[in-house]
Formats: sequence, C-alpha cells, structure tokens
Amino acid sequence: MNELPQNAFQRRPDLHVETEGEFKGWRTWTRDNFETHNGPFWHRMDENGHVQCAFRVEKKHLNGQRNVHGGCFMSFADYCLFAIASSVLQGPGVTVSFSCEFLDAAHEGELVECEGEITRAGGSLIFLRGVLKSGERSLFTFSGTIKRVKKKPAGTVAP
Amino acid sequence: MNELPQNAFQRRPDLHVETEGEFKGWRTWTRDNFETHNGPFWHRMDENGHVQCAFRVEKKHLNGQRNVHGGCFMSFADYCLFAIASSVLQGPGVTVSFSCEFLDAAHEGELVECEGEITRAGGSLIFLRGVLKSGERSLFTFSGTIKRVKKKPAGTVAP
Repeated sequence: MNELPQNAFQRRPDLHVETEGEFKGWRTWTRDNFETHNGPFWHRMDENGHVQCAFRVEKKHLNGQRNVHGGCFMSFADYCLFAIASSVLQGPGVTVSFSCEFLDAAHEGELVECEGEITRAGGSLIFLRGVLKSGERSLFTFSGTIKRVKKKPAGTVAP
Repeated sequence: MNELPQNAFQRRPDLHVETEGEFKGWRTWTRDNFETHNGPFWHRMDENGHVQCAFRVEKKHLNGQRNVHGGCFMSFADYCLFAIASSVLQGPGVTVSFSCEFLDAAHEGELVECEGEITRAGGSLIFLRGVLKSGERSLFTFSGTIKRVKKKPAGTVAP
C-alpha cells in the first residue's frame, strides 16, 4: 500500500519540482495559500517508493521561546498526510481528524523530516501516522484521517 | 477555575491591546513569530470572566480548495489553549498533546470564534478543550494538554 506508482505525484496540476538549492528534485504544491505562506514544505519519493517530507526551520516558524511553534509542526504534519496519501488518493480529500504528541523542541536552522505510512486505505477514509525528526531525535508523533471528497451526482443540490 | 482574575492577561510582557478596528479592545501576543505571521489571532475576557478568541479569515489562511487550511485551524486552536489557560498558567508552558476533529469548512471573510474551557488544572499539566465556530456553525472541536515549564534549580545542566 505504501509502494508508490511512479506517477503518484503527477495528479495535481499545481505540482512544482524544485530545480536548485538543498531541496533540488523535491516537490511541493503551489496553489495552497496557507502552505505557501508557511513553507516551503517539500516531499519526494525515495528509491523504495516511500514518501519523504521535509522543511528547513526559519525564523517565521518559531514561537516566543525560539522553538518551532506547535501550530507549525501540526501544519507541516497535515501537509505530510496528503503527501503520504498520494499513492491512494486519486482525487481531492479533506482531513477529518488529527492527533499528536509534542516530544521535543526544534530550533532555527534545523532540518525537520517526516517518516510516515498509510495504516489503512478504505473506500471513504484513509488512515495515516507518522513521526517528525531532526536527525535521530524524535520531535513529534501524529496520526490523522483523510476523507475522500466524492463528486456529487449531476443534479444534486448541496444542502 | 474558568473565572479569570482581572490581571490574568497582564503577565506577559509582549501583550498588545488593539486600539482600533473590529478587534478594538482585544488582546494578542507579539513576540511569537509564527502567530504574528499567521494571525493576528485575538483574545479577550467577557464580563463573566470567560476567555473569547477570534480571527477573521484572510486569503493567507486558505488551502487549495479555498477553505481554511487544517493547519490554520490547528494553529489558532493552539493559540486558544494558551489564552484559555491564562487564568492558571503563571509561567511558561508547552503543548504536549493535541487532538481535533474537522466538522465543517470556513471561508474567506468569515469570523472564526473559539469557545473553550479548562477541564483540569494540575500542578504539572493543564487539560483544555474547545470548539471553533462561525456564527452558530461548529467548524472544529479540539482538546489539548499544556505542561507547565518549571525553572530548573540553579546549577542544573540540561541533558
């Protein structure tokens, strides 16, 4: 289930592949205002078909104690849910639930990486979990559920 | 426990009280880069001593489907945890766990408000829960736990 088809990332028209810098070859999505404002957040597929996600901590990600803000970890993790789900999410989806634990702080300049997996992909719901790390240090564990958004039959009027 | 002392919001040196516009009289904190970047998020105390939190949805808060991004709801809710905890949190604190459900979408221009409460304030942990609404429409429910950060005894070296 976590073996990605090579075209899994090609389905969204707003895909951007970085051409330079430390994230050369990594991908992001460009039509999402909130992610663009807080990112760039990046994802790619490794040689085994697993999705990797990462971002480099900047000043804008910090809280008043100079650590990465909890909302930043949660926002990046929400991005990761959709990157990890790419192999099974053929159309649009929405997060319906999310849960997390804050294990350790991250600081300006650090690379935050995500390891995650799909735990079940059903016809309506996709369940995922992951961990954010800086090097070998675990920062944040999370689980989330994405609901597939299905097209309404023609003629259906929204309530 | 949810009856706030009148000076509950005075303890942080970076407190800003808005002087004009729709949030005149509301408060925010200014030394938090991530919240400043994504806000302004606001809080105030009503006549019964309950904390109210709110923000007005802007373009920067939207995802690719033109709804408020899940990470934005979660970031605002994390802000709300600390605003609601003001009455019992005399020093710094960190979020240690967070859980939420996404009930409905919010759109550009809408006012998102939080109703929340402290469910238990212990010596180390503070438990809270809340709901985000737009008018009478429930958007997002959440619960979270804040851990008080205690000063280490003099001479203690961080591990």
